[in-house]
Amino acid sequence: MGSPTGKHEMRICVIGAGPSGLAQLRAFQSAKEAGAEIPEIVCYEKQADWGGLWRYDWRTGVDEYSNPVHASMYRYLWSNGPKEGLEFADYSFDGHFGKPIASYPPRAVLFDYIEGRVKKAGVRDWIRFSTVVRDVTYADGMFTVTARNGEADTETKEQFDKVIVASGHFSFPNVPYYPGFEGFNGRILHAHDFRDAREFEGKDILILGTSYSAEDIGSQCWKYGAKSITVGHRTAPMGFDWPSNWAEVPALEKVEGKTAFFKDGTSKTVDAIILCTGYKHHFPFLPDDLRLKTANRLAASDLYKGVVYTGNPDLFYLGMQDQWYTFNMFDAQAWWVRDVILGRIALPDAAAMEADWQQRQADEDALADDYACIVYQGDYVKELIAETDYPSFNVDGANEAFFQWKKHKKKGIMSFRDHGYVSPMTGTMAPPHHTRWKDALDDSLESYLQTTADAAE
Amino acid sequence: MGSPTGKHEMRICVIGAGPSGLAQLRAFQSAKEAGAEIPEIVCYEKQADWGGLWRYDWRTGVDEYSNPVHASMYRYLWSNGPKEGLEFADYSFDGHFGKPIASYPPRAVLFDYIEGRVKKAGVRDWIRFSTVVRDVTYADGMFTVTARNGEADTETKEQFDKVIVASGHFSFPNVPYYPGFEGFNGRILHAHDFRDAREFEGKDILILGTSYSAEDIGSQCWKYGAKSITVGHRTAPMGFDWPSNWAEVPALEKVEGKTAFFKDGTSKTVDAIILCTGYKHHFPFLPDDLRLKTANRLAASDLYKGVVYTGNPDLFYLGMQDQWYTFNMFDAQAWWVRDVILGRIALPDAAAMEADWQQRQADEDALADDYACIVYQGDYVKELIAETDYPSFNVDGANEAFFQWKKHKKKGIMSFRDHGYVSPMTGTMAPPHHTRWKDALDDSLESYLQTTADAAE
Ligand SMILES: Cc1cc2nc3c(=O)[nH]c(=O)nc-3n(C[C@H](O)[C@H](O)[C@H](O)COP(=O)(O)OP(=O)(O)OC[C@H]3O[C@@H](n4cnc5c(N)ncnc54)[C@H](O)[C@@H]3O)c2cc1C
Ligand SMILES: Cc1cc2nc3c(=O)[nH]c(=O)nc-3n(C[C@H](O)[C@H](O)[C@H](O)COP(=O)(O)OP(=O)(O)OC[C@H]3O[C@@H](n4cnc5c(N)ncnc54)[C@H](O)[C@@H]3O)c2cc1C
Ligand SMILES: NC(=O)c1ccc[n+]([C@@H]2O[C@H](COP(=O)([O-])OP(=O)(O)OC[C@H]3O[C@@H](n4cnc5c(N)ncnc54)[C@H](OP(=O)(O)O)[C@@H]3O)[C@@H](O)[C@H]2O)c1
Ligand SMILES: NC(=O)c1ccc[n+]([C@@H]2O[C@H](COP(=O)([O-])OP(=O)(O)OC[C@H]3O[C@@H](n4cnc5c(N)ncnc54)[C@H](OP(=O)(O)O)[C@@H]3O)[C@@H](O)[C@H]2O)c1
Repeated sequence: MGSPTGKHEMRICVIGAGPSGLAQLRAFQSAKEAGAEIPEIVCYEKQADWGGLWRYDWRTGVDEYSNPVHASMYRYLWSNGPKEGLEFADYSFDGHFGKPIASYPPRAVLFDYIEGRVKKAGVRDWIRFSTVVRDVTYADGMFTVTARNGEADTETKEQFDKVIVASGHFSFPNVPYYPGFEGFNGRILHAHDFRDAREFEGKDILILGTSYSAEDIGSQCWKYGAKSITVGHRTAPMGFDWPSNWAEVPALEKVEGKTAFFKDGTSKTVDAIILCTGYKHHFPFLPDDLRLKTANRLAASDLYKGVVYTGNPDLFYLGMQDQWYTFNMFDAQAWWVRDVILGRIALPDAAAMEADWQQRQADEDALADDYACIVYQGDYVKELIAETDYPSFNVDGANEAFFQWKKHKKKGIMSFRDHGYVSPMTGTMAPPHHTRWKDALDDSLESYLQTTADAAE
Repeated sequence: MGSPTGKHEMRICVIGAGPSGLAQLRAFQSAKEAGAEIPEIVCYEKQADWGGLWRYDWRTGVDEYSNPVHASMYRYLWSNGPKEGLEFADYSFDGHFGKPIASYPPRAVLFDYIEGRVKKAGVRDWIRFSTVVRDVTYADGMFTVTARNGEADTETKEQFDKVIVASGHFSFPNVPYYPGFEGFNGRILHAHDFRDAREFEGKDILILGTSYSAEDIGSQCWKYGAKSITVGHRTAPMGFDWPSNWAEVPALEKVEGKTAFFKDGTSKTVDAIILCTGYKHHFPFLPDDLRLKTANRLAASDLYKGVVYTGNPDLFYLGMQDQWYTFNMFDAQAWWVRDVILGRIALPDAAAMEADWQQRQADEDALADDYACIVYQGDYVKELIAETDYPSFNVDGANEAFFQWKKHKKKGIMSFRDHGYVSPMTGTMAPPHHTRWKDALDDSLESYLQTTADAAE
């Protein structure tokens, strides 16, 4: 590890090449481009390509190298929030696509956008694909990272000064048990394993959960011809104005054969049960002393400024918060972490770092509603970007897009994606999409970018 | 680790409490019962209960602690070979059930039998349940085993003199890709994720593979009302006398929408594709220098006597062979490994150990047919038990049960389970089951042990 000058060359490990990990690579590359000296960077990515959750995978269970499949996205998935909330400040949609596009792009379009920036930055060589991090240890001020290349089926152990965990937290499903599940005569799956809504054409579906996955997977099944959708809520119904073959019912009590029984004594015979019951922060490669344990919330536990692990400030976590903001928040975090590593930002003492996340959680706990949550996370983004050279942008404008989005959802849960918003980066107003979401069965990039309506299928 | 006498107390780690790991515990306990001093034994088991694959789990994908689900068995699974081939020599079926039972018990019945022996032996306290081994390293003649308890979400690191890997090799699916899989409009699953045949009632099913899983999952789907079963073969058809709604076709070429196209130009529209394409030997917890790499065959690579890892003779593997013999072969291996550890059997030098497995593979390669394979594995069992105090038994009688089984399958693939054989342990002739397999829809222990026929469902 010695260098000719006798100086130890700093080495940085980034775990994951999804939007967060790629933001970290782009952050260092942009400093380098501006003339800074940057450390050596190694990014391990367990999948064969970058993009994280935005890389579609038809597999479920384990992947081709016997690791748990990372992908939780499914066919026909369209952004569930407006693209104006997630736009990169240094790489606009208008710039990437060469023209304004509508506000709720399908997965393939957002993948293309994510990829466009990092292709241009030329950071692909920093990534070791098909390589899963299996273990990380810390001793004498250095990390040892053990990684297995699936293709070669061999391992490496390398030393790093800093580790940045960007492995995501929407890949390990939370799968509750309900009495009778072991005897259900149909399919029980978690949202993580949902792939193609057409599988459920003509079927009676039971969904558990009332958050984004429940809402969107239910809508997909409806759009592609499910016979009926029944959603059981543990806490409260979603309360949207659902189509006629959609019912919200109380919590599930048990199943017998193919019949589900609910807390109010009603029952429904169903073909499949889709558990939209959320995900777990899970880091199978980290020992107790390095492992983040937090609920899925806006102010994660044990993270100073939402990114520095208070148990060991050589360790960073990106994107571990629950997310209204995504891509540009990951950027804000990655630029900030980069500047800590480059010595441009100093960390306070342990007590101050501890007080920081606790204060953030107290502030979060005091928020009144979703609107306040959006503003809170927008403020966090503002706070971070004010301390680095990440291009400042109109965060209030992005907040406004989120507010509109919520109103449009309330007005029509099957039509909100037909609206458009103003970009906080370029000021462009998004044009409407050529086909209404509920009629747009083709989710390809080609179809989305064309200017005429889809042919009816 | 020091003891009061200054003597280092030997510690043994067993990974897995399936039939193989439990055989190892029983082997040590039986030596202790006979008056021997035995080392301290710690068995790590990632599931919440023992029994390995024989423990049914409704989950697929990852388990409640986010580890890949171990279970590959499904509802209504009956033994696919005669119980007379797997009977324990020290614990007979007649003894356990108090009466003779039929030859092809369902899963729950065999689970009960496996459990009966180890309950009696009193070894449950040696097992740490819900605890997955995450890493094993070897240095200075000792192993360090890192294990995570899922319930507590905490880790331990402990030192051992010997490690015995009994983690099975039918849990990590081999999942091939075929063109169009990413666009298939139905469900694609591996046999590992198959759970309830009733899910496929009224459906057109495509199965790939021509071995035990293909044969048995196809038969299940047929028995529980699938509309049609189509099996694509890569090498050769199975060639049994299938029911009229069952077709064997050439290899799959591609899928488009819900239509599968085969090498001979024919096609079939199907609702689901079940990949019965086998499993991988996979040990995510082992580094390169300790990790077995072998094909699924009767003479595994790199294992002296089929159990001692030639790369490090303090490391043992149980049950890593392809299996005609199962439970009593694992016993033969476990007793033999125990005797190496107790110093009753000496290992030869490295060259001799290397020559041993290579000779075994050469012998295997020369075998003419399945009958010869059965005799070959029977001879291996004989070889091992001759060198320990494991009760000697009539291996030729067990071979004979396998021969009969093969003949009965050929005669009627949906009726072979209605036959009975002679126990190689007790000499008892198995009575016929009260209901023919194809009509027996209830696979519970209670139903199997009753003496009158199942009520029609
Ligand atoms: C179904 C679904 C739909 C969503 N839709 C939207 C949406 O419409 N709009 C939006 O803004 N956000 C959406 N999200 C939120 C999503 O979390 C973010 O958009 C984004 O993908 C998070 O980026 P990330 O890099 O933090 O994590 P991920 O995208 O999860 O990427 C993590 C990367 O780390 C890799 N990795 C994991 N473990 C290891 C390891 N041990 N070794 C090496 N590599 C590893 C993974 O393979 C992956 O590439 C959605 C999430 C889900 C689950
Ligand atoms: C679908 C199917 C049907 C079968 N049917 C028959 C049959 O009818 N008759 C027959 O004789 N054989 C059958 N078999 C063969 C089967 O392999 C054996 O019967 C037997 O279960 C093998 O025992 P084992 O202990 O070697 O492995 P397993 O039964 O696989 O047990 C391994 C154990 O190790 C645990 N484990 C794995 N990794 C870890 C870890 N990292 N840390 C801690 N614990 C771990 C697992 O949880 C499991 O409990 C079948 C196999 C399959 C897949
Ligand atoms: N682009 C898209 O269209 C799209 C689609 C899907 C998901 N996503 C994203 O994916 C991420 C995850 O969303 P998510 O909906 O999967 O998770 P989530 O937001 O964490 O919601 C989890 C849901 O599961 C319920 N739940 C948890 N345990 C339960 C139990 N034991 N029984 C019944 N219900 C239980 C919760 O109910 P309680 O309220 O009762 O606790 C809650 O409704 C989000 O970032 C989301 O934006 C996006
Ligand atoms: N109790 C029961 O009833 C029962 C039920 C199921 C399984 N089991 C047990 O489970 C174990 C595993 O059996 P298994 O059948 O799953 O595995 P297996 O015996 O290893 O067979 C694998 C099959 O997959 C095929 N295959 C592999 N790769 C393929 C590809 N890329 N495309 C097409 N086909 C491919 C192979 O075909 P080729 O011949 O062309 O290589 C072979 O037919 C056995 O011990 C078995 O006894 C028992």
